[in-house]
Parts: sequence; C-alpha cells; structure tokens
Amino acid sequence: MSFSFRVEARDARARAGRFSTPHGEVATPAFMPVGTRGSVKGVRPDELRALGTQMVLANTYHLSLRPGAERVRELGGLHRFMAWDGPILTDSGGYQIFSLEALTSIDEDGATLRSVVDGARVRFTPEGVMALERALGADVIMALDHCPSDPTARTAVEDATARTRRWLARCVNAWNEAGGTASGQALFGIVQGGAFEDLRARAVEEITAHDLPGYAIGGVSVGEDRAAMRRAVEATAPLLPEEKPRYLMGVGTPLDLYEAVRCGVDLFDCVTPTRHGRNHQVFTWEGRLNLRNARHERDPAPLEASCDCPACTSFSRAYLRHLCMAGEMLAAVLLTQHNLRFFHRCMEAMRTAIARGELTTLAARIESAQGREVAAEA
Amino acid sequence: MSFSFRVEARDARARAGRFSTPHGEVATPAFMPVGTRGSVKGVRPDELRALGTQMVLANTYHLSLRPGAERVRELGGLHRFMAWDGPILTDSGGYQIFSLEALTSIDEDGATLRSVVDGARVRFTPEGVMALERALGADVIMALDHCPSDPTARTAVEDATARTRRWLARCVNAWNEAGGTASGQALFGIVQGGAFEDLRARAVEEITAHDLPGYAIGGVSVGEDRAAMRRAVEATAPLLPEEKPRYLMGVGTPLDLYEAVRCGVDLFDCVTPTRHGRNHQVFTWEGRLNLRNARHERDPAPLEASCDCPACTSFSRAYLRHLCMAGEMLAAVLLTQHNLRFFHRCMEAMRTAIARGELTTLAARIESAQGREVAAEA
Repeated sequence: MSFSFRVEARDARARAGRFSTPHGEVATPAFMPVGTRGSVKGVRPDELRALGTQMVLANTYHLSLRPGAERVRELGGLHRFMAWDGPILTDSGGYQIFSLEALTSIDEDGATLRSVVDGARVRFTPEGVMALERALGADVIMALDHCPSDPTARTAVEDATARTRRWLARCVNAWNEAGGTASGQALFGIVQGGAFEDLRARAVEEITAHDLPGYAIGGVSVGEDRAAMRRAVEATAPLLPEEKPRYLMGVGTPLDLYEAVRCGVDLFDCVTPTRHGRNHQVFTWEGRLNLRNARHERDPAPLEASCDCPACTSFSRAYLRHLCMAGEMLAAVLLTQHNLRFFHRCMEAMRTAIARGELTTLAARIESAQGREVAAEA
Repeated sequence: MSFSFRVEARDARARAGRFSTPHGEVATPAFMPVGTRGSVKGVRPDELRALGTQMVLANTYHLSLRPGAERVRELGGLHRFMAWDGPILTDSGGYQIFSLEALTSIDEDGATLRSVVDGARVRFTPEGVMALERALGADVIMALDHCPSDPTARTAVEDATARTRRWLARCVNAWNEAGGTASGQALFGIVQGGAFEDLRARAVEEITAHDLPGYAIGGVSVGEDRAAMRRAVEATAPLLPEEKPRYLMGVGTPLDLYEAVRCGVDLFDCVTPTRHGRNHQVFTWEGRLNLRNARHERDPAPLEASCDCPACTSFSRAYLRHLCMAGEMLAAVLLTQHNLRFFHRCMEAMRTAIARGELTTLAARIESAQGREVAAEA
C-alpha cells in the first residue's frame, strides 16, 4: 500500500501524524506551499526542502492550460518537471470554477471555463479532470467540486453540494478504473456545504460514503469573515473519519491554521506566505512587519534573531527594506523564503505541542504572530 | 600593503594574475557581476560565491540616492550591508553623467544630475564622490570622470578628456588626504579619449602620471560598433602600466571579453549576463538561446550538460521555457545564475589558457558561444 495515514499523538481533537505517499512521508499537521504553475514563486525545490517544506500544491487548471498536462507527462510527470521529489497535491480546477465564476458556465456534466492564457473555452468534467491529474502525476489528486460563490445562499449551496456529490461519484469511478491507490495516486473528496451546519454534516456523510485515502474541507476562505470560516471548520472537521487525513483548502494565516489544527485538521495550503512575501509583508513571532515602513530603515537587526532562513542569517531589516524600496527582485525572493520558513516553524511547533499534549499553550504565541504592525496600517 | 597585483603568466599581451584587496584575492582576468543598488538582481551573495564570483560592482550614484552613502556607513559599510565579504568596486557616477546626459549639466567644478528616485538635483564633484565612495567603503573606488556622449566628436572628446584629467587630480588629492591605500581603498583612474588614438595615448600619459593602484578604460561600449570598441581597447590597454590591474568598464559579451583579455585587460563588469537572464536570453558554449523559442518546449535536456549551476543541475529546457512563458520569477533567478556561471567559466577558461600559453586556442569556442540562436532572431 503506497498510501497510509497514522495518527501518532492526540491533544483534545488535534492530531499529529504521518501521511505516507509514494514520494515520501509528511509529518502532520503540515503546510503545503502553493506552486500554482509548477513553481513556488521565486524559490527552488532545494531551497523549499531546506525551509522545511514536505509537500507542495500545484494547480491542474493552470498547468493544463500551460504547458499542458500531456506535455508534463511526456517530460516525466510533475515531480520530474519541477524537480521536486517529495509529495505533490494537485487541486482539481474546482477553485477556478469558483474564482472565474463570471467566465464559467456549469451544467450537470461539467463546467466550461475560459483560459487565462488565451481566452479559449476549456471544458472540465469529473472524468476529464481525473485524466488531467493522472497525466500530471501528483501523489494526491483532488476530486472536481463545485464551490458555491455565496456560502450563505442556501438553495445555491444545496445545489452545488449535491453536484459535488454526484461529480465525486464519477471521479471515484474514473480513479478506480485507473487502479485506485495502486495507480500511485490518492483521490481526496471535498466536503462543501457553505455556512450551513446541516448541509456540511450531510455532505460529510455523502462524501465519506466513498472509502477514500483522504478528505478535504472546501468552500471556506471564500470571502466570509473569520468567525464564519471557523464555524464551518468546527462543524465539519470533527465529523470526518479519524483514520484519514483531513485537508483544509486555501487556509490561511498562522492563527487560522492553529484554530483548524485544534479542530483536527492535518493538511493546509495557502498563498499567504508567498504572496505576502512578494508584497513585502513579513510574519514573525512578534507580529507582522511591513518592510516598507520607515521604522526599519536604520535597523541592523534581522527579521527574527531566532530564524535560520536565508533572509535572517545574512541580512538586516535595513537592507531588506532597501531592497523593497528599490524594487529589487531579491526582496521578494528573501521575504518569501522567510515567510515559508515561519509557516513551517509554526507547524513544527504545533506538532511538538500536540505530542506533549500542550497545544493550547501555543495560543498566546500564535496570537502575537498574528498581530499587525501598527504603523504599517497607518 | 593591503593592495597588490601580481602577473603570474603571460600569453602574448594577455596576462593572468592575482589582485589582492583587503577583502581577498581576485584571480584575473575576472568578471564582476553588477549589483547596482547593492544587490546582483535575484542572486544572494552565497549563491554568487558558488557561481564563481570573486568581486562585485556597486553603483555610487544609485546607492547615494537610496539608501544614502551615510546610511550604508552607519550600517557597517557596503560589505556588511549587502552581506558580501569579498572585494567590491564602486563606480563613481561618471557613467550616470553620460547616461543621464539630458538631465545633467556639467561645469568645471562638477556635475549636477537628477535623482532617478525623486527628481531632486544631485551635485557630484570629485571631492564629493570620493567622500561618498569612502562612506560606502568598497575596496576599489573609481575616480569621477567625464565620459563624452559621442566618442567621434573630437572637440567634445578633448574637452571631456581634459576635464577627466583635472577631476582625477582632485580625486587623488582627496584620496591621499584620507590616507591613500592605507585607508583600505584603492583609487583607479579612468582613461577617456573616445575613438581617437592620439587622445587615448595622451590620456594614458596624463592619468598614469598619478601612481595609482589601478587604471580603467572608460568611454567604450557607449553605442559605438564592436570594431570601434575593439580599436579603442587595442589602442589603450597596451599603453597602461604592466604592473597594475587594467579594468575595462561596462564590457561586454564573451567575445568582447576575450578580445580585451588578448589586449591585456584584467577586470570587467557588465550587466549582460544578469539583464539577459531576466530577458530569458541564455549563454552557452553552443551559442545564445532564447528560452521563449518554441523549439525548447519539449526538450528534456538542461541548458548545458556540462554546467554545474542550479539551473542546469535540476531543470530541463522545457521547464525553464515554461517558467519564462508563465512569467514566473524563478525563470529570471535561474537564468541569471546560469549566465553568471557561464561568464565566470569563460574567465576561468581564459586564465587556464593563458597559464598554458594557448589563449588563442579558445577563439573558436568563444566565437561559437557568441553565436546567436537563429530562430530566436526570427
């Protein structure tokens, strides 16, 4: 069996475990950097590894448009293509059905989207997406889902959640025909249900009726406030099978991650550390920094004295701010690496705390990491 | 004595040697990557070192505007600021007097330029530039020169060359007052003279009347054709003192470097490898590649099988092309590193060939490296 998940420690509902894949093991809870087009922006795979990355996410929609899923297969699959020999997860395009809604039409068979590359029509069906993800060759492949655009519009949420159920059945058939886990790929189903606890619970029942290697919580972090997101995760995560990895899609800040881990979530992805890095926003245990802020311009200290990332071991805040102000590419590269290291250190701290049964003692540290730099907001 | 230059091998007029500075030795002939604002675009200092970089160039005009030369001094000087502990050379702003000519007025005392940061007037005099370069703290500091905008306009060239001579005398005085080489900084004078052999020869006599630690050839690569550039270097380099390093400013392609080395030049800087990398143009021993060219889209081979740079050891041409087409930052980072490695390997090959007395046997290899990718030009 090329996939397994083993819970090694519990602390209330939180779990620390090991997710095994054909490309190696992931200590959970874990954060996956986002490599939308087969590249975590500005960071080489060997650097990702040194920063503590265990598994990365790539995007089926974007890679299928350019360079094309078949092209990636011809070139040896996504691991070889992007030179990352660790586990990879590919999303299904469901998020683009949501985010490109204005350019998308959905019917029972699938969705018709526009290409962001050339504007052409692109057809995504459950069977078609399974074929694309098979060609890309990630370890974990996500089912095609329909994420409703307004999680509080009950009729639309019911409709999207039911379609997600029907599409999952077709994904499961296609995946089984290809060999199931024996194909080297683990299919994860996605729980929708919007802001409605009863719909979330019903979706969990329907999705977990398929015995899959893992399950994801979708339809959160789609514009709702933090409290609503937290309620959706709290209502969903504990209902998912204990013995399978649980993946919360597209979340979030360190505090979001911590709260979801407390609900029993194991896997995360988000553009926050990489996008914030490119925008000169930095995460530290003392709160977020806006490196463009004038208060850093004479500061010889590193971003964090305790950090072992390439930005912190060699450079002052004053120099990094100079790179930001001068528009130097190295600013984005270094700040992205720092943020990724910070996120991975957060997850390491959570794994250690869970093993010791003291996860809640992290709350204050995580809260202070969440804090905003006051002057940066002015 | 903190500076010395030792010629260790000769091959016709070419020399291989060692230039010693307070921050280490440089095996010559050597190429200096350009770190205009205190950063070689997209490349960390530890990566520069691994690519074979011995010495880097930074820009007095740009750094004096932002973050300011005094700010750099407060932060421990340029070496510490940019975390490069090897030798650094700062140019003087003379190039900006040339390149920003439309925004510059020159008088006998100095030049008034515009700030590219905020449009403010900036005054550069020989004494002021020496103070700026002292604050930055590079190992080699260039004298303020006046590079004429049209190297074929004799009267203007005579005028600029004479002003360069008078400004050098003032730079030498200021540098001597600061302690000369005992200050830890070596002042290099700059030979102007445009396209006129007699003016070049006269300038060499005037500039070398000052016993300086090194001399530079300026006013080339300013828009003239390659043959004119070559004539200017051939007319100037052999006249410079044998026992001092000779630096050709702002040049060039591998073939330009080779031809200048054959004339006896020891040091070079140019934006070619870094700028070309950002523009997806790659240097190889088989010629230049335009990575955007469709012929690379299925190519599983590296840029160069024999290259040990981070781009070549992990990635295919197909993947690198994909990064270029997708506008991924990692393309610029990787292609810049490859080009720098290529330039340093060219210089290594020249040093080895000079030591063996067979520099001319490199001619065919260098010529083929210079070749353009035919389809890329279409």
